[in-house]
Amino acid sequence: MAIRALVFDVFGTVVDWRGGVAREARRLLGPSVDAAALADDWRRRYVPSMERVRSGELPWTPLDALHRSSLDDVLAAAGRPDVAPEVRDELTLAWHRLDPWPDVVPGLTRLARAHVLAPLSNGNVALIVDMAKRAGLPWDCVLGAEIVQHYKPDPEVYDAAPRLLALPPSSVLMVAAHVEDLTAARARGLRTAYVHRPDEFGGRAVPPETDPDADLSVRSFEELADRLGA
Amino acid sequence: MAIRALVFDVFGTVVDWRGGVAREARRLLGPSVDAAALADDWRRRYVPSMERVRSGELPWTPLDALHRSSLDDVLAAAGRPDVAPEVRDELTLAWHRLDPWPDVVPGLTRLARAHVLAPLSNGNVALIVDMAKRAGLPWDCVLGAEIVQHYKPDPEVYDAAPRLLALPPSSVLMVAAHVEDLTAARARGLRTAYVHRPDEFGGRAVPPETDPDADLSVRSFEELADRLGA
Repeated sequence: MAIRALVFDVFGTVVDWRGGVAREARRLLGPSVDAAALADDWRRRYVPSMERVRSGELPWTPLDALHRSSLDDVLAAAGRPDVAPEVRDELTLAWHRLDPWPDVVPGLTRLARAHVLAPLSNGNVALIVDMAKRAGLPWDCVLGAEIVQHYKPDPEVYDAAPRLLALPPSSVLMVAAHVEDLTAARARGLRTAYVHRPDEFGGRAVPPETDPDADLSVRSFEELADRLGA
Repeated sequence: MAIRALVFDVFGTVVDWRGGVAREARRLLGPSVDAAALADDWRRRYVPSMERVRSGELPWTPLDALHRSSLDDVLAAAGRPDVAPEVRDELTLAWHRLDPWPDVVPGLTRLARAHVLAPLSNGNVALIVDMAKRAGLPWDCVLGAEIVQHYKPDPEVYDAAPRLLALPPSSVLMVAAHVEDLTAARARGLRTAYVHRPDEFGGRAVPPETDPDADLSVRSFEELADRLGA
């Protein structure tokens, strides 16, 4: 594989959304809320909210706005209609403040020496930029949904990566912890690497250890760097 | 001024296009060519080539392709029809290999601590990414013409910066060595900082020392960092 650029799914693959959202929920809502359950419920509403954009029911809407809107439903379901609007706005920024898995910064730092690295996430640009600045993620540029106003797995998102990097799709490696993201990337000609993230869902729903259809399956970004000779 | 993000013109403002293009022309074409004159002629064809896209005469075309096409005219005018296509392709990459002015990396490094930094250039994403990796420019993301498929000074390019950074235009500072770029940014509500780059045209056409209409006029990115308290 002559890989020139790596593009990354972010939520679950690069960062621990469940732990980070729960931490911010505890900080802003206090100990009476089940913060991990709140994170799970918020995340459950993620795909359906994007589906409303993908189907055309909603015009293009950045993920921050989808998160803010679904948070109202999450808090209603959690019996917390009392939470003030400004606290809801602040809690929505939890998604900007997620911590990377421990192998991410060391792995990306090695990979950045000889490869172009970019997120290819459904997160909007401001979210991804805030997250990267806080966590020290060495992205070379920010690609993804908002740039093309389509959510994954729409083909437009995957196609934009080789187009904007001026590379053949076969020299771009999509890295994700989710098989369906890799399947969609592969359909557009990208190479694929699966990362096993057993803790994404708090250990309750453990994803498969490998993706037999991917070019590579690894357990960390450091192993990915090893495999690419970085 | 409560500035949260700085967006930068690149050619002439961040990097010395004339010196870099001449260096690559000398390397690839040998000493018989007047490398500085070649750089000047290539750059002269830059605005007219983008004008063909802005007017709708050409569909969206990334700057690399415009550069490659105008290079054929440059070499014809220079009496060098003999240059092989693969050398022309390689010479077009000169624009990916330009050196920053000496104050740029120290200034950006200070500014990056408390501000989001992004290029807002007519250069395509791959060009800007290659340049940044080679020169160590600490961009947080890459904005600019190719993202919105419009060339500056079209308003779409300026409007996309606050939109994608999720900031009010008045908290985004456009930095450029060219008054007309700042005028167009100001018309879209951005703040503006003028940088005096006396050597951009090899000292022959010296630009004004300040832009009286800009919020700030400085002589280096380090002075810009001083003025913003970075």
